[in-house]
Amino acid sequence: MSREKWQLCVLLAILLVFVALAPVSQACDFCNVKFMEMQEEKAETSLQAREILDLVRGDNAPYRVTPLTTDNKQPDKADEQEPIEILQPMNDKQNGCTGCDGLPPTSYVPQDVEPDKKFTLTLKEGDVYLGKGVLYSGFTIDDKIPGPTLIVKQNDIVEIEVVNTGKIPHGMSIHAAYTQTSKYVGQIGAGETKSIKFKVTYPGVYMYHCAPGGHAIPMHTLFGQYGMLVVLPDDGYELEKRGEKPDVELYLIQHEMYKTGKDAIMGDPLYVLFNGQLFRYVEDPIKVRPGDNVRIYFLNVGPNIISTLHIVGVVWDHVYWQGHPDNVFVGGQTVLAGPSDSWVIDFRIPEDEGNYLLVTHAFGSATRGAIGAFSASYDHEEVVSVILADGPTYTEEELAEFRELAERIISPYEPTDIDEPFIITPEQQKATVEIIGNSFYPKVLKVPVGTEVEWINEDIFTYAEGEFAGIHDVAATSGPEMFASPLLGHGEKFSYTFTEVGEYEYICIPHPYMKGKVIVYDSDEKSGSQQASFNMWYALPLALAGMIVLPIIIRKFRS
Amino acid sequence: MSREKWQLCVLLAILLVFVALAPVSQACDFCNVKFMEMQEEKAETSLQAREILDLVRGDNAPYRVTPLTTDNKQPDKADEQEPIEILQPMNDKQNGCTGCDGLPPTSYVPQDVEPDKKFTLTLKEGDVYLGKGVLYSGFTIDDKIPGPTLIVKQNDIVEIEVVNTGKIPHGMSIHAAYTQTSKYVGQIGAGETKSIKFKVTYPGVYMYHCAPGGHAIPMHTLFGQYGMLVVLPDDGYELEKRGEKPDVELYLIQHEMYKTGKDAIMGDPLYVLFNGQLFRYVEDPIKVRPGDNVRIYFLNVGPNIISTLHIVGVVWDHVYWQGHPDNVFVGGQTVLAGPSDSWVIDFRIPEDEGNYLLVTHAFGSATRGAIGAFSASYDHEEVVSVILADGPTYTEEELAEFRELAERIISPYEPTDIDEPFIITPEQQKATVEIIGNSFYPKVLKVPVGTEVEWINEDIFTYAEGEFAGIHDVAATSGPEMFASPLLGHGEKFSYTFTEVGEYEYICIPHPYMKGKVIVYDSDEKSGSQQASFNMWYALPLALAGMIVLPIIIRKFRS
Amino acid sequence: MSREKWQLCVLLAILLVFVALAPVSQACDFCNVKFMEMQEEKAETSLQAREILDLVRGDNAPYRVTPLTTDNKQPDKADEQEPIEILQPMNDKQNGCTGCDGLPPTSYVPQDVEPDKKFTLTLKEGDVYLGKGVLYSGFTIDDKIPGPTLIVKQNDIVEIEVVNTGKIPHGMSIHAAYTQTSKYVGQIGAGETKSIKFKVTYPGVYMYHCAPGGHAIPMHTLFGQYGMLVVLPDDGYELEKRGEKPDVELYLIQHEMYKTGKDAIMGDPLYVLFNGQLFRYVEDPIKVRPGDNVRIYFLNVGPNIISTLHIVGVVWDHVYWQGHPDNVFVGGQTVLAGPSDSWVIDFRIPEDEGNYLLVTHAFGSATRGAIGAFSASYDHEEVVSVILADGPTYTEEELAEFRELAERIISPYEPTDIDEPFIITPEQQKATVEIIGNSFYPKVLKVPVGTEVEWINEDIFTYAEGEFAGIHDVAATSGPEMFASPLLGHGEKFSYTFTEVGEYEYICIPHPYMKGKVIVYDSDEKSGSQQASFNMWYALPLALAGMIVLPIIIRKFRS
Repeated sequence: MSREKWQLCVLLAILLVFVALAPVSQACDFCNVKFMEMQEEKAETSLQAREILDLVRGDNAPYRVTPLTTDNKQPDKADEQEPIEILQPMNDKQNGCTGCDGLPPTSYVPQDVEPDKKFTLTLKEGDVYLGKGVLYSGFTIDDKIPGPTLIVKQNDIVEIEVVNTGKIPHGMSIHAAYTQTSKYVGQIGAGETKSIKFKVTYPGVYMYHCAPGGHAIPMHTLFGQYGMLVVLPDDGYELEKRGEKPDVELYLIQHEMYKTGKDAIMGDPLYVLFNGQLFRYVEDPIKVRPGDNVRIYFLNVGPNIISTLHIVGVVWDHVYWQGHPDNVFVGGQTVLAGPSDSWVIDFRIPEDEGNYLLVTHAFGSATRGAIGAFSASYDHEEVVSVILADGPTYTEEELAEFRELAERIISPYEPTDIDEPFIITPEQQKATVEIIGNSFYPKVLKVPVGTEVEWINEDIFTYAEGEFAGIHDVAATSGPEMFASPLLGHGEKFSYTFTEVGEYEYICIPHPYMKGKVIVYDSDEKSGSQQASFNMWYALPLALAGMIVLPIIIRKFRS
Repeated sequence: MSREKWQLCVLLAILLVFVALAPVSQACDFCNVKFMEMQEEKAETSLQAREILDLVRGDNAPYRVTPLTTDNKQPDKADEQEPIEILQPMNDKQNGCTGCDGLPPTSYVPQDVEPDKKFTLTLKEGDVYLGKGVLYSGFTIDDKIPGPTLIVKQNDIVEIEVVNTGKIPHGMSIHAAYTQTSKYVGQIGAGETKSIKFKVTYPGVYMYHCAPGGHAIPMHTLFGQYGMLVVLPDDGYELEKRGEKPDVELYLIQHEMYKTGKDAIMGDPLYVLFNGQLFRYVEDPIKVRPGDNVRIYFLNVGPNIISTLHIVGVVWDHVYWQGHPDNVFVGGQTVLAGPSDSWVIDFRIPEDEGNYLLVTHAFGSATRGAIGAFSASYDHEEVVSVILADGPTYTEEELAEFRELAERIISPYEPTDIDEPFIITPEQQKATVEIIGNSFYPKVLKVPVGTEVEWINEDIFTYAEGEFAGIHDVAATSGPEMFASPLLGHGEKFSYTFTEVGEYEYICIPHPYMKGKVIVYDSDEKSGSQQASFNMWYALPLALAGMIVLPIIIRKFRS
Repeated sequence: MSREKWQLCVLLAILLVFVALAPVSQACDFCNVKFMEMQEEKAETSLQAREILDLVRGDNAPYRVTPLTTDNKQPDKADEQEPIEILQPMNDKQNGCTGCDGLPPTSYVPQDVEPDKKFTLTLKEGDVYLGKGVLYSGFTIDDKIPGPTLIVKQNDIVEIEVVNTGKIPHGMSIHAAYTQTSKYVGQIGAGETKSIKFKVTYPGVYMYHCAPGGHAIPMHTLFGQYGMLVVLPDDGYELEKRGEKPDVELYLIQHEMYKTGKDAIMGDPLYVLFNGQLFRYVEDPIKVRPGDNVRIYFLNVGPNIISTLHIVGVVWDHVYWQGHPDNVFVGGQTVLAGPSDSWVIDFRIPEDEGNYLLVTHAFGSATRGAIGAFSASYDHEEVVSVILADGPTYTEEELAEFRELAERIISPYEPTDIDEPFIITPEQQKATVEIIGNSFYPKVLKVPVGTEVEWINEDIFTYAEGEFAGIHDVAATSGPEMFASPLLGHGEKFSYTFTEVGEYEYICIPHPYMKGKVIVYDSDEKSGSQQASFNMWYALPLALAGMIVLPIIIRKFRS
């Protein structure tokens, strides 16, 4: 395929994304088809191409058997097996299990069973306000980061319905479910709803998060879609065994926020928060009275950095690894939690009034937002006995005001005010943009006219059926000249030399939320003067053409 | 307030810092008052300003009730409650506790009780020598990093007296105390002494560290003020239960040293040390004999990076999570410790002589200094049976020689020889200095004349009563031109365009140890020639004015 | 010694490395001798020099007593002690141990005992293919990364023979050995073979890795030389106690790959892999059947980043810290492992078919390669019951093709195609190259003619007997001009101003695999034109001289 044809193709695809009236129900099928054609063309000389073809089309192709993500609605083979009592412990022979009395069953239940508890989670792209004048543009669950806190009891049958009201595919991974979840709710197209039922047999504090398949599993989590699901144990913890109960229960998530996709991959967050707001419980300390029994259900979402949770003035009475009552420790000043690790923490408020600071003792994270406080006073008549891990929510009016007044807006995948241009001088002649973590890095590049800019795809997880994963391209959406790359696998490059002064905006077609900008300046330092020269010559006629041609293309590739 | 007035104000404040004969007993009250005025002025348009005003002056203002740090000397309400036997387990009703037999009491004791053990810790800013020709300029306890190792027995009543001989506020957080410490020793002004008494009821290996409130809690710890407090269990560990005892006891702290505040926040240390010296126990291996029982009381201070402690040629016999005898594990090649995590480790020296290397298996840290060795020989007649975690100390003469001969001096918050200028070229037109981790980054900037330099405050924890926390400004102290910014909250910016060649030095007034430099060069490459043009025109008359005016201002704001 | 003499000396040394017919059997003895002379010359003014001399020559010199690495072949003193029953628990008196019944003996056995199992490991420098078009040039064991998986039973006497077929010293640290290993296999010269015997008394999952002494211990591990040794417990785990056994056993290593030595020290890997290949078990999912008992022997090699291993759709039944059956936990969604931490993980495949994704929940690492999958189907007639942690191996033909077709070649210590030149502009006047992690950073520097380039040694662990550790120098091997530095200790610098346009290649003589490049361009932008001007004037005559002179020098310094 010639470069001209490809460019036309790309333009149509751009229009597909921007003009299309309906949201994208699957991750760019057009891109998938195109990408596979390209692999065949270069199989002779490319190791990656060969591996991908083997993987998808070879005799031994594993994805043919059981795809990583499947739209599997037909009756399940598990149900066709000889009927098994769902409460019965399961062993490798699936019949009378001797010797495994101590083991609870897995979470498998036939999908037509009646649930004890039902929850609905709504996923989309959106903004949240973090406090301190900071607005975050990322992905949300129920318009929050973290999403809603789900609390169930051991042995409940739980139904979770997942609604995608966004423009791209989302999905769900639920750590409390000891059974297949990917094929039920793993990938949910824009506008679709799916659900899963399972029985929670192991008590504990679990993470759930968006997981639309492949490279997007970590990326959507890094962008903000996660929450906590707690399975309360039948017999409680040591405290309950002593005949007591917690006076205050804090469901606490520590989580990270990134200003670029590269930072997300490298584990360099800009903010680290407790329950969705910078220093939330410093601004609104948790009221307790001396002598109160306090329980923290703690989940470190991460998704990169460890936390060592500590309270100034408190030694733990008992802590429970992953929240299971059998995994008990005595005393201790901290609990160490990697990403998706959890603890149940029990302690008492001492006799002496004052503030008891809550902090991750990984102090780089603490300074970035992960500090809170318990305010202990004999005068607190009423205390809030349950504090959930949900991020704060705001009305549309409040959010509109936040957007207007925000000191800064940050986003991992598109340029905002904080993305200062990365400036290339004439001596450097060449500039490189990494495509990494579903974003461009640097997001804004400023180069002298005549500079060759090279994009290199540093994302690696390049393929999983039905999902576009870490394959990216570069396509201009505005600017004096137009340019577009083919789809790039890991380590593949595309270069373009800018010969006209002006501002160029571009996106990645398979992931149209990924945005970048190149500012080309006159090396005699007249940059800036022509920045507004938005070039519309091709946009209008093609938009018209797109209106007619695209519905046909879409229909073709979706069927 | 006009810019001119503000500049005058700033100059006076500079003089306050440099001219004042007495050290600063509180964190810049003048700055606090000024900052609150500014918040009122911009409350209409700034989200941050509104939040801060709500927090401090609103109806629901939590800090009115129980400030994060308080100079609370009056009798405590805890003592006014119905008298409770301090040894009695405490429950939520504070009376006869049934069912909580297994739980020790918290650490609360009335402050007039007689202690079993008393320690004095002296905090200040100062230098230490790290070995390998490296001098570190930071914050110290008893002139050491780490500070002294404190060893007590379970159920001791401990008094810790904290003396601040520095120029800025310091304070103390003591992890072994299961009771309020912040309000007794949380913030101690320059020249002041405070103390706290508490009963250590949970055995374990604990961290203590400077904690003067708010943003300074993590920062002073990152800058070097920490140590170990061990509470020995009444009945010992498995070894004692077998009727044996350790032949060699090593109290071991792993800790990190940073060359910029930004590195401290990002968790990128320049050095990682065992007990305060680079490769201390390689240079002076710990002598042991085959068959010796060795116990390590291990604390990873961090404050950012995990450690997996390992000894080449040793498998652990027993290790105890956080040093509590009930949290016992068998075998294992490593122990994993996040910041402020601790372990007690018991093992035997095998029959075979030779060196047994001690190392964190996080090998990036090992190469930066965290390697040591046990030297095992049948010929070692005497072995040192107790090795404390205290950093090395030197006489004033030794330190003077180290300062003169040091290959390098490093400091997180002020420029030293290793801070190479960050050079801006004429094409870049603009430069950005981040204010982060109570330091400027880059600390030394070199720009062509006419460049606009923008400072942006990336510190976030902007307020806690009585402490200035992460609010910073920029104020010239020398150079051809003068400039000064208002106080900056998180994400706020200040710009200044340099029009004269020369060297400019500046500080942050609320944290005058924070120092930065801008070198302005002629873009025709004659830079350097005018560097010495220190501009005195404003310093002398203002110094005189300051002598008269400042005492009045200080008195006004301190009262 | 004058600079001219030193340069001649360096040239001879270069020839030593490149011309010598035999590989280097010890780490540059010539360098060691030279370095010690330099320390004496500067002892008056250098703190480092004094410390090193004290360490090696002082009265109290610890290295005289028991060197960190020794070529100890004579009968061991342990054998000369009163004979002890090797199976008998050892205590500090080495006789009848009362009260230590619960403790197994250490691993010490006389070296003339007959082993139950014998393994041979072959170490050298070499390439491996990582998948996705990436070839890695580093250090290997048995031509693999990770090396072979060694499986033994509790109380086996194990012999490990280590063969060095590389060009530099290698060695071995074996974490399962609870006895001296360093002095038997700690340092093995090029072409040499050594061995060690030990008894494995503590069951568990252990790391082994190259450890040639000093700074090289972490560096060779960071470069790829490691593997897993599992000691299976006599009585199995809970599963075996229930009368069952695992249907599928996965030996799983997570490990990191670096593209520069600096990244290795900073803990910023380019790739994170399971068992040596990017997304290995996505491309070839592990086949299981619903109801299967699966056991994972998990080792996080690191050597820097934590892992929280998780399987989508699985809650653990039992996990065992470090693989010891006594350290059992129930339930949980993740296990947290720092570098060299390990777990045994037992779980069941639920009734529902589909893919169960295996992933580290530290999602930055997951996106870089650490994702896999179990494919569960009732139709899988045969499943592979044991999957080892060995990295993949390829024939020489396959590797040759990979080298030709690779999208990218990466290496921590020498420039490859991915090492874009770091460009210095004329305004900057000066450039700095860090020597860190046994590599130059940046590896390729491009400077205008007339620029002063400064090399600074940021490696710290500067000395351990018999090994050159973190001492480096800079010596030109090609280019229009020649330059050479003296040996640099930590923080020491060397500067050279380039006055001729062209390409300069250089190495570090003690570590000749460390390679760097400086490209000098005409600031009027004619760079590139003279790049090929390889300067041979000095190479040929000196090569001839070297042929005659070097054997004499070598003989002198080796004896």
